[in-house]
Amino acid sequence: MTEFLTLLPPSEALARFLKQIAFSPETEIIPTSEAVGRVTGCAYYAPHPLPTFRRSTVDGYAVRARDTYGASETLPVYLRVIDEVAMGSQSQQVVNSGECVLIHTGGMLPEEADSVIMLEHTQSAQPGEIEVYRGLAVGENIINVGEDIQTGMEVLSAGRRLRPSEIGGLMALGIISIQVFKRPRVGILSSGDEIIPAEQDLTPGKVRDVNAYTLASLVGRAGGVPINYGIASDKEEDLYEKASRAFSECDMLVITAGSSVSTRDLTARVIQRLGEPGVIVHGVNIRPGKPTILGVCDNKPVIGLPGNPVSALVIASLFVIPIVERLGGSTPTQFQATISATLTINLSSQAGREEWVAVRLIKTPEGIQAEPIFGKSNLIFTLVRADGLIRIEADATGLPAGSIVDVHLL
Amino acid sequence: MTEFLTLLPPSEALARFLKQIAFSPETEIIPTSEAVGRVTGCAYYAPHPLPTFRRSTVDGYAVRARDTYGASETLPVYLRVIDEVAMGSQSQQVVNSGECVLIHTGGMLPEEADSVIMLEHTQSAQPGEIEVYRGLAVGENIINVGEDIQTGMEVLSAGRRLRPSEIGGLMALGIISIQVFKRPRVGILSSGDEIIPAEQDLTPGKVRDVNAYTLASLVGRAGGVPINYGIASDKEEDLYEKASRAFSECDMLVITAGSSVSTRDLTARVIQRLGEPGVIVHGVNIRPGKPTILGVCDNKPVIGLPGNPVSALVIASLFVIPIVERLGGSTPTQFQATISATLTINLSSQAGREEWVAVRLIKTPEGIQAEPIFGKSNLIFTLVRADGLIRIEADATGLPAGSIVDVHLL
Repeated sequence: MTEFLTLLPPSEALARFLKQIAFSPETEIIPTSEAVGRVTGCAYYAPHPLPTFRRSTVDGYAVRARDTYGASETLPVYLRVIDEVAMGSQSQQVVNSGECVLIHTGGMLPEEADSVIMLEHTQSAQPGEIEVYRGLAVGENIINVGEDIQTGMEVLSAGRRLRPSEIGGLMALGIISIQVFKRPRVGILSSGDEIIPAEQDLTPGKVRDVNAYTLASLVGRAGGVPINYGIASDKEEDLYEKASRAFSECDMLVITAGSSVSTRDLTARVIQRLGEPGVIVHGVNIRPGKPTILGVCDNKPVIGLPGNPVSALVIASLFVIPIVERLGGSTPTQFQATISATLTINLSSQAGREEWVAVRLIKTPEGIQAEPIFGKSNLIFTLVRADGLIRIEADATGLPAGSIVDVHLL
Repeated sequence: MTEFLTLLPPSEALARFLKQIAFSPETEIIPTSEAVGRVTGCAYYAPHPLPTFRRSTVDGYAVRARDTYGASETLPVYLRVIDEVAMGSQSQQVVNSGECVLIHTGGMLPEEADSVIMLEHTQSAQPGEIEVYRGLAVGENIINVGEDIQTGMEVLSAGRRLRPSEIGGLMALGIISIQVFKRPRVGILSSGDEIIPAEQDLTPGKVRDVNAYTLASLVGRAGGVPINYGIASDKEEDLYEKASRAFSECDMLVITAGSSVSTRDLTARVIQRLGEPGVIVHGVNIRPGKPTILGVCDNKPVIGLPGNPVSALVIASLFVIPIVERLGGSTPTQFQATISATLTINLSSQAGREEWVAVRLIKTPEGIQAEPIFGKSNLIFTLVRADGLIRIEADATGLPAGSIVDVHLL
């Protein structure tokens, strides 16, 4: 299984990969109060309207609007105060013509009242009576029943990632537990005779694992449950055995390997053995990250990442995260927040190949600047020093200094 | 304690508030692998260089560069292959003039070799001998000791929020546990005779709590530990008692109250009783969210939020989150990722007052559009329907349709 001669652009590689996977995540019921960041497993509809009663939006007097027609400072209207609506209670009084009821912001309108005159547009005339200085329209300063949401309206569609406001909306409707998609289990396996766990001391030729930890953090942030399966050697049987176990226990498997031709081929062979159809994409037209392997084995995604930390992070963002999101039942967001910045220097790039460059952001009086960090893609501290990444499109031969670039925060 | 007659702009209100608080968060030691999103409690320095040995960045042969001077396709240089560097091991051989050693990407350079010729620029001449077709410079295709980071260099300063790449960098250096600032405990207390917990059935005049849940989600996302203290009535003693308990158990207290003048005054009185100096800011020149109260009691921040869900969320983003971040030891980020979009309609705004407007994002062939969602600030579903918020600066009288706006995602 050698690399394709014609490398696919990243978007096409992802599309070809996705076409091979049928996503059918399972669901579970959890308390709504713990569901922020989770994804709705079904659609939700309002069991009752919100608000359930007409509420005042101001401090004032609930009145019949018709009674106030023509009222002005010079020709006030006089109304009799027959009650006060206590917060959280219902007034027992009906507002008849010539009457009004004192009400606070959020209070429940009494029967027959249809609007609220603000306190500052009234004055006490004598005990139990007010002067009204302004005419009101019906409905003024009130929220009607169902003005927030009506019974039966869709509150949330299935596949929506819950933000704090959704949690609030569900709670307002008394929906205190909710069906969400289970978080996908993502197996992470490092490979390479030179790799040792972070807690071990270094000996000549050995390096500590980095990618297993950055990947686990990324996967967790995307809503997955990362499971670390340790480090396999460069022997095919060892890698196959560890990969098989992770594969059978998880919804997805990510293998990071070295960048040598032999380890890439080894990873591809192992993916080929895990199930059908096996390797879908071998090599992507991107820098860094060309030696990426995308595989599907018996409907489970298996991704082989290049071992260089920068490549691994770029490729994880482009291929691992979208898959984790889909396995978790959500459609990846259409809208990606970025920071707009001015490029400090000319960047050259090979036409025909998408390129990602790490940048540091600098705040200046003229605005935010993006300064490329040059470092080989095998240096983890390139990423520690970087604030984000910028993309140079495949058809560009580079970006001139002064270009406005979209910086994707790390 | 009535509202100041001159309302402060939000930035000035925050500055005045911050000046009253001395932040001195505590630290704890946790495993680095679980530290993503946490904040470093001290600076970290590299205990050894990275890499610790010279590594090849390609598949090829480790050579002495001088041996390859002048090599070309027509006039190749011949070198004797004396060994192969196994991954993770050290070659026992020294590369003398006229010799080379087979090496893989990431492999450790043997002694006396100073560069690596790529496999594709060589050919096997006869067993144990290669032809080299290109001249090399010293250091070509290798990473030197300390090229990623040198011994004693600062890896991370104190107060850095850890991203996946920092976790990787620390692990690469064998720093498997780390001192981070403790997550601040944020007490959340709702108040109002009309408010009931989300699990209760509605009766006339009552509404379910919303803000406690949205706030808890926001606080958690900002790195705090939200603690829900339930609902207090509109009686001063009840509010004071519940607020006192939350205040004594937490690093910060947030009280959401109604928007009526009386409940605002009640909240202010209670904050005044909790400690010195008490209320610092009463009312901010912003819409929504004018009835905001910022207090400091015995060096603990106490914030009174308006009860309307939209106001509460806007004010929490502007005042609660920056405080939670500082209590957690981090300096709020200078760089806020946003989405650039085109405003669909004219928006008017009162000059002299900062305004925040909820918008929905729409993807069109001409780019992303931001469509304002008009809804009273007491409607939670305004926020459920919104993708983000846009800010209209205090000195503007509005924004014309077609303006490019920065959308802050919710």
